[in-house]
Amino acid sequence: MGSQLGTLFRVSTFGESHGVALGCVVDGCPPGVTMCQNLIQTFLDRRRPGQNEFTTQRAELDICEILSGVENEVTLGTPIAILVRNQDKKSSDYNDINQIFRPGHADYTTFKKYGTAASSGGGRASARETIGRVAAAAVAKAYVQTLLPQVDVIAWVDRIGHVQAQVDLNSVTLSNVEASSIRCPDEIAAANMMSEIKSAKNKGDSLGGVICCVAKNIPSGLGEPVFDKLEADLAKAMMSLPAARSFEIGEGWASTFLKGSENNDAYFLDKESNIITRSNRSGGIQGGISNGMPIFIRVGFKPVSTIFKQQNTVTKDFKEIQFTPTSGRHDPCVLPRAVPLIESMFWLVIADHLLRQISLNHKFLAEIQNNL
Amino acid sequence: MGSQLGTLFRVSTFGESHGVALGCVVDGCPPGVTMCQNLIQTFLDRRRPGQNEFTTQRAELDICEILSGVENEVTLGTPIAILVRNQDKKSSDYNDINQIFRPGHADYTTFKKYGTAASSGGGRASARETIGRVAAAAVAKAYVQTLLPQVDVIAWVDRIGHVQAQVDLNSVTLSNVEASSIRCPDEIAAANMMSEIKSAKNKGDSLGGVICCVAKNIPSGLGEPVFDKLEADLAKAMMSLPAARSFEIGEGWASTFLKGSENNDAYFLDKESNIITRSNRSGGIQGGISNGMPIFIRVGFKPVSTIFKQQNTVTKDFKEIQFTPTSGRHDPCVLPRAVPLIESMFWLVIADHLLRQISLNHKFLAEIQNNL
Amino acid sequence: MGSQLGTLFRVSTFGESHGVALGCVVDGCPPGVTMCQNLIQTFLDRRRPGQNEFTTQRAELDICEILSGVENEVTLGTPIAILVRNQDKKSSDYNDINQIFRPGHADYTTFKKYGTAASSGGGRASARETIGRVAAAAVAKAYVQTLLPQVDVIAWVDRIGHVQAQVDLNSVTLSNVEASSIRCPDEIAAANMMSEIKSAKNKGDSLGGVICCVAKNIPSGLGEPVFDKLEADLAKAMMSLPAARSFEIGEGWASTFLKGSENNDAYFLDKESNIITRSNRSGGIQGGISNGMPIFIRVGFKPVSTIFKQQNTVTKDFKEIQFTPTSGRHDPCVLPRAVPLIESMFWLVIADHLLRQISLNHKFLAEIQNNL
Amino acid sequence: MGSQLGTLFRVSTFGESHGVALGCVVDGCPPGVTMCQNLIQTFLDRRRPGQNEFTTQRAELDICEILSGVENEVTLGTPIAILVRNQDKKSSDYNDINQIFRPGHADYTTFKKYGTAASSGGGRASARETIGRVAAAAVAKAYVQTLLPQVDVIAWVDRIGHVQAQVDLNSVTLSNVEASSIRCPDEIAAANMMSEIKSAKNKGDSLGGVICCVAKNIPSGLGEPVFDKLEADLAKAMMSLPAARSFEIGEGWASTFLKGSENNDAYFLDKESNIITRSNRSGGIQGGISNGMPIFIRVGFKPVSTIFKQQNTVTKDFKEIQFTPTSGRHDPCVLPRAVPLIESMFWLVIADHLLRQISLNHKFLAEIQNNL
Repeated sequence: MGSQLGTLFRVSTFGESHGVALGCVVDGCPPGVTMCQNLIQTFLDRRRPGQNEFTTQRAELDICEILSGVENEVTLGTPIAILVRNQDKKSSDYNDINQIFRPGHADYTTFKKYGTAASSGGGRASARETIGRVAAAAVAKAYVQTLLPQVDVIAWVDRIGHVQAQVDLNSVTLSNVEASSIRCPDEIAAANMMSEIKSAKNKGDSLGGVICCVAKNIPSGLGEPVFDKLEADLAKAMMSLPAARSFEIGEGWASTFLKGSENNDAYFLDKESNIITRSNRSGGIQGGISNGMPIFIRVGFKPVSTIFKQQNTVTKDFKEIQFTPTSGRHDPCVLPRAVPLIESMFWLVIADHLLRQISLNHKFLAEIQNNL
Repeated sequence: MGSQLGTLFRVSTFGESHGVALGCVVDGCPPGVTMCQNLIQTFLDRRRPGQNEFTTQRAELDICEILSGVENEVTLGTPIAILVRNQDKKSSDYNDINQIFRPGHADYTTFKKYGTAASSGGGRASARETIGRVAAAAVAKAYVQTLLPQVDVIAWVDRIGHVQAQVDLNSVTLSNVEASSIRCPDEIAAANMMSEIKSAKNKGDSLGGVICCVAKNIPSGLGEPVFDKLEADLAKAMMSLPAARSFEIGEGWASTFLKGSENNDAYFLDKESNIITRSNRSGGIQGGISNGMPIFIRVGFKPVSTIFKQQNTVTKDFKEIQFTPTSGRHDPCVLPRAVPLIESMFWLVIADHLLRQISLNHKFLAEIQNNL
Repeated sequence: MGSQLGTLFRVSTFGESHGVALGCVVDGCPPGVTMCQNLIQTFLDRRRPGQNEFTTQRAELDICEILSGVENEVTLGTPIAILVRNQDKKSSDYNDINQIFRPGHADYTTFKKYGTAASSGGGRASARETIGRVAAAAVAKAYVQTLLPQVDVIAWVDRIGHVQAQVDLNSVTLSNVEASSIRCPDEIAAANMMSEIKSAKNKGDSLGGVICCVAKNIPSGLGEPVFDKLEADLAKAMMSLPAARSFEIGEGWASTFLKGSENNDAYFLDKESNIITRSNRSGGIQGGISNGMPIFIRVGFKPVSTIFKQQNTVTKDFKEIQFTPTSGRHDPCVLPRAVPLIESMFWLVIADHLLRQISLNHKFLAEIQNNL
Repeated sequence: MGSQLGTLFRVSTFGESHGVALGCVVDGCPPGVTMCQNLIQTFLDRRRPGQNEFTTQRAELDICEILSGVENEVTLGTPIAILVRNQDKKSSDYNDINQIFRPGHADYTTFKKYGTAASSGGGRASARETIGRVAAAAVAKAYVQTLLPQVDVIAWVDRIGHVQAQVDLNSVTLSNVEASSIRCPDEIAAANMMSEIKSAKNKGDSLGGVICCVAKNIPSGLGEPVFDKLEADLAKAMMSLPAARSFEIGEGWASTFLKGSENNDAYFLDKESNIITRSNRSGGIQGGISNGMPIFIRVGFKPVSTIFKQQNTVTKDFKEIQFTPTSGRHDPCVLPRAVPLIESMFWLVIADHLLRQISLNHKFLAEIQNNL
């Protein structure tokens, strides 16, 4: 029951990191959306490891296959199942750590939850689980842009360790981000980040940091006023990513230091007499509902738990032990690969709230179609 | 559809701030839990405004009535409906602001969502909506403590504006918090906070800040490994509160600056050979699942949007205007009253995940009962 | 969790038959639907007991109150809570039967489910629970007819015991039905039914029978192809009514005796070149999806379990006993009062599937609006 | 959203009849249940076509593959994805009928729902969709019998056309049923049924009929008192099967002719002082909740829509036409193959309600474990 997300655009993911396959089923995607294997593969390729020296060398191609819900490159309106088979299952890589509860990992809590030892390599707790999310997000994006072609979602690495980038969220583009091998569009900061990552890697250590994400041209009216506030569903979506530790909407943490007179975004009329705000400290949401301005968030990630240093822990037969992993395939810094994950979760939340608003307010669909 | 929370312990809230009544229906609470009007009223009294000079003077008693699901002071296992009637509906207080979209408020986004002007005084966007949540949380706490009497959830004001309290999360108690009229157990900081609030109030301005919350003696095994991670559901619950802008689990933001070797919590055995961690930077959760250590979170709140200073905005007939509210009942700082809201949302999340774990792992119930 | 119905038009009911109040919360009704207390009361008055000699004499007015979600006689798009207080709670009427498990009633199964003795008079198992459903259905009908004013749902008593009415489902009207005190529009059959009911009542016995229901002008495209077939959701809705024992869609049972060549409804074009079928043995649904023809169903009800004859049973302290109830307020035949319940459940299912189709097929809304 | 069933034991199915693959994801199955490919294959083999002269000759092996959620032949507690690839996709078989809306089929309603022509061969409306249900039911049965090994569910063909079998529901066994090539354990009736089927087949016609199903040793306490009554969820589950037209619980239709004094099942004590009923006209359920007696249902199926006789219909470009299908692979009578489908849906409903009762009544699990 914990493997489903969304009320109307509902995604179910399945698969263990060292099992047969991973994937998703998307139920609720409207018919008539252009869709094909290639489009989903492009999304998956962005999250794929082994792309450069900064990511884990688990060398899987992660080729996806659409099993259902698409015919002649168009969605049918029925469940879309997408499959990625595991190929590089070197469980032996994990033999030396299979007898212990690794600090920071979910081995112990998984054991306590299910009453069985976690399957090798992390099972559902592995970052490979996000394959299903990313595949589903490719569908979500295609659907949203069918109705709202101008919507875009762009994430980037904003900080790694203590190296802070300077990025203008109004002008940053997806190609700026992708031009950087660590997905930081501030070239100077990116260079410093890379050097920090190399240094950490050499020491067998790992780094955390922050990813920013902005969604542009989201229509006003998305989100619900109570539990399913847009920022609440975004928070859940982002905090469900492995290693996420903090979430902010708009100026977030910084706004907690401000006074109301400093923080409120005053309303104005633009040239077409649409209501806008000039400042956007709220991050495009009031009372849980989008106001038409850019929505931006920050997500903090802890340093990856896998390090190649000696640590204290406990074995699965409850003995204290000191251990130092000597092998295993892990990023010293998860941030660059988390960028497409953040975007993916954002698309999933938008697609769901778009469908919800269409079903609730029967004038909304015509309004957004008229704006095209 | 946006007014429900929880998978198995499901809460529905209803009610507009200036309508007939507010309340909730709790569906899924097991039978046999001791419950009465008085117990719920005690919870509601903690969130009630008008208690001292630091809170809004809207003087409502907010008396609740249990409509169903309880007989002879015990839950029946059927839906528990709880009602609070609105008494102090001075809509005239809002006449001067009823023609404009107030900056920072949900007036404009509500209008865009529903296609109708927001009802007076905020409707569902008002903080009065939280009455239903708090009433439901009284039921949630009673249920959880029936199974796990040692579980406790304690929140407090940790910062207001720039005034930071020093509070030890291991020793803080509910009575420490309640002893402070602004619910900050650090007496010196509390005094400074009060002086800041008075100063802001005198200037017609408002303040934000941070609330911390710790949950103790939560059994390991609560939470799901993918979308419904315990921290993800906590993030959603907290970010669904009015004015919440940021969320952190454990060391959260701070941990994003650390290296893996600094951040991992090593496992040890305690005297009874239970697995514990000595440090607790993760905040009691790995991979979305509780590990038995204290769970702690931080929630940042923006300054209240209602200020008594001149602001630019737009009228409901789309004309730019400057306005200065001259009346209305609002806290200059929402933090003290948000403390019981944070606790309430925490109890709701725990109750839901406790039921989920009981249904999934059929050995879990006997295990926690044996630990009593 | 078992007190909710609907995916997008979601109804939660609450309340015990001898508790403080009963009611419902409707979450998901779009904004802008004309709604008032009077409209709901009219619905509730049709299900009210004590209206003539054929119904139980429990003399409650069942006055409803709208608590939320409606302002100035229009829905806001927020949850609509509706309350009916219990007034005539003569629990003493039930004293003589409170110590036994009544045959045919839910006393024993409720005890086994919840581990506590059932509350007096039936609790959630009482037919009074349907108050919440009927109130919600008033909202559902108003919403559906806002979009589709020509849709109508008409139910009637088709058989009581062995007395079968002859009713033409194409010409029957709501006023035909309401003109009959037992809601059977075939006057001759109605007279015979009344005489059967009086006879059963005099003998302290009870009768079952069948209700038919037809829904006209339902647009094609409602329903889902797999689990949530329109007839499957109708079946669930109807079989969730107290005493319902059988369900048929279209020719139902009769069609199981036919050959395919006798049963298939051939397609034709009408004068406007719309696709129709001339026969309608399928009852307006193929593959779970409406085809635009009238949808009709039959629901069989067992005879009411409360009879005033000696019966064997077991006491709540597990002793065999013979008993004969001497008092209590119960219909000898539930059918006439079940007519508005059947209609209510039908409206709830239509409202939900209408919203679902609007959210799935983005051309559907414009299509049905163009047909007006 | 219409492809999911169950609240806690949640099944999602996917796949078109002529697409790449069909399958399911089961979310909510507890960990520790013995499970393997072979066990699921055995279930699937029972629904497989082409087994004898009475079923369609579409010769697919329908080999399943477990993709996730199972390790070392034990469930992990995570989503179990099961895949069956389509092999025998002779779409050309359907060329002659691909341009028309076939009477009785979902071609037309699918077109109206999704706004696109139905995919060849039925898409989601095909009986091949039930592959996912049957695979999921294999998991459901294994889970239920882990807790309640004595529970059994047995369905059989009770009537075909006008040929009625005589079967004693107390003594019938699964092997009795499987011994008959048309799954009717009454040998004489079976012979007559086979002759009827051959006759219909020779005429290019089809037959309907009735399937009975009994579930034994279901513990009391399963089901919910309001919308999710056990018989309501069974009705939905069964009416969601292709061609199902009627549903009865217990004596169902027959009980609508009885008087209360004839229909009530009196309670008695058995030798171990457990409460039982001797008659069981209610079919083991009162007020939506199981009472421990056998639960039995009847499901009526219409004759299959595919016949090889001339019929009137309309083409997809809206012209009236007469057509006679000359090829295609279809059963003249779906009943024998629907037997495992009925059992499958029953297992899914039991598994879900078992989990729900475990989560609601915290004494229930210990009670049923003590009864072993």
